[in-house]
Amino acid sequence: MTRVRLLVAYDGSGFHGFALNDGVATIAGALTEAIGNVLGHPVVLTAAGRTDTGVHAWGQVVSLDVPDEQREDPLDLDALRRSVNALCGPAVVVRSAEWAAPDFDARFSARWRCYRYTVLNDPVPDPFLAGTTWHVERPLDLRLMRLACDPFVGEHDFSSFCRRPKRPQGDPPATLARRVMSARWDDVGDVPARLLRFEIVANAFCHQMVRSIVGTLVEVGLGRRSAGSILDTLRALDRSTAGQLAPPDGLCLWEVGYS
Amino acid sequence: MTRVRLLVAYDGSGFHGFALNDGVATIAGALTEAIGNVLGHPVVLTAAGRTDTGVHAWGQVVSLDVPDEQREDPLDLDALRRSVNALCGPAVVVRSAEWAAPDFDARFSARWRCYRYTVLNDPVPDPFLAGTTWHVERPLDLRLMRLACDPFVGEHDFSSFCRRPKRPQGDPPATLARRVMSARWDDVGDVPARLLRFEIVANAFCHQMVRSIVGTLVEVGLGRRSAGSILDTLRALDRSTAGQLAPPDGLCLWEVGYS
Repeated sequence: MTRVRLLVAYDGSGFHGFALNDGVATIAGALTEAIGNVLGHPVVLTAAGRTDTGVHAWGQVVSLDVPDEQREDPLDLDALRRSVNALCGPAVVVRSAEWAAPDFDARFSARWRCYRYTVLNDPVPDPFLAGTTWHVERPLDLRLMRLACDPFVGEHDFSSFCRRPKRPQGDPPATLARRVMSARWDDVGDVPARLLRFEIVANAFCHQMVRSIVGTLVEVGLGRRSAGSILDTLRALDRSTAGQLAPPDGLCLWEVGYS
Repeated sequence: MTRVRLLVAYDGSGFHGFALNDGVATIAGALTEAIGNVLGHPVVLTAAGRTDTGVHAWGQVVSLDVPDEQREDPLDLDALRRSVNALCGPAVVVRSAEWAAPDFDARFSARWRCYRYTVLNDPVPDPFLAGTTWHVERPLDLRLMRLACDPFVGEHDFSSFCRRPKRPQGDPPATLARRVMSARWDDVGDVPARLLRFEIVANAFCHQMVRSIVGTLVEVGLGRRSAGSILDTLRALDRSTAGQLAPPDGLCLWEVGYS
């Protein structure tokens, strides 16, 4: 078998997340079926991040194996890319396809993941941004939201900011420790609409972690909780102390880093 | 009756155009129903441009009348805007609502209309631009497309670049003379994807005129017809001499000008 690496973008609006799930449309389902059809044999995909229902990706990374005999009659990876896009596009698009080292694993070789979350902060909605932003009408205090980012940087137990995964009885609880390398807000909008973008980089993310952090930071921006309270919430290791989950539409798996 | 002026944006993907049409979803249908529900009486809308199926708008202008008695108990136009958006959004959004002069007519008072058409010119599709651009994979020669714009500026009979409207038998044929004030292409994309935007301003547009012009200009950009041939096509007054119609997704009624 020879390993292939795909760079994948998708509009997650019409999908029940990345991971295969019988009976519902998922990104992995669409890709597995399309690649299997093009290659003429079933494939198993490994992804850098298993995004939730409605969450988008610009730089999802996927690895898979193709039988060796296809290297004697070498597989044209760009033709594969185009054929898969003809079947899955435009909602799911393979941006590039290349040969990878035999030990490359889209999930376990990843050093960091970068997510972006975009908020349209304007009294008026925008039909063209509705699918990719969270529309917050009341003005947000960007200065406070920036201050409130700082405590997230570093290695922490994110129990307060994620959904604890179900484990088989008897298994030790999963660790929710993650190392956040950077977390920042930028004002990226044109006048007159205000577009605020949160970008966070970490070695890995727990389930719903970015949406929980963004929901809490937006409450800081609205003046409903203080920037100084974030450190207490982080230390509480209790999910009920965090803010509401931000909707999935604004979230995008932006980039994955490998060594 | 007192006149009201609305500025309206919409994602036309899910609609059979602007104009009311029994049994199918249209922008005017959605707005007429929502405004009627909020005001408690039926309304009749007049629009600056009757966009086709799948065509978008950022700056559509709509005029309508509300009964005078609503000025004694003054109608809160911003509350009207928010209520209509709660019913029609996020696909159709009233960006602003204001009182207008009694003789203001969104259609007949308009001095110019500006349309934008966006082409994604890249080998790779983009899931987030699929609904608002035309994806052209092969590289376009922007210099030739710019040269080919020039003949459109000025007053011309656009018979070669539009669909002739049906008229009742015995009526004189409609004039297809229109005055184009400007027509230009700009490269508005970030590296690495190339986003080309055509912007055209005219006193008014014939049916399918912008899509026919763009389809023809893209054929110039692909090297399938010369920039110099555009003047001949314009003079031929024959629709069969023009290029293919560009798809509706890339088209947006951007702005309407009034004196």
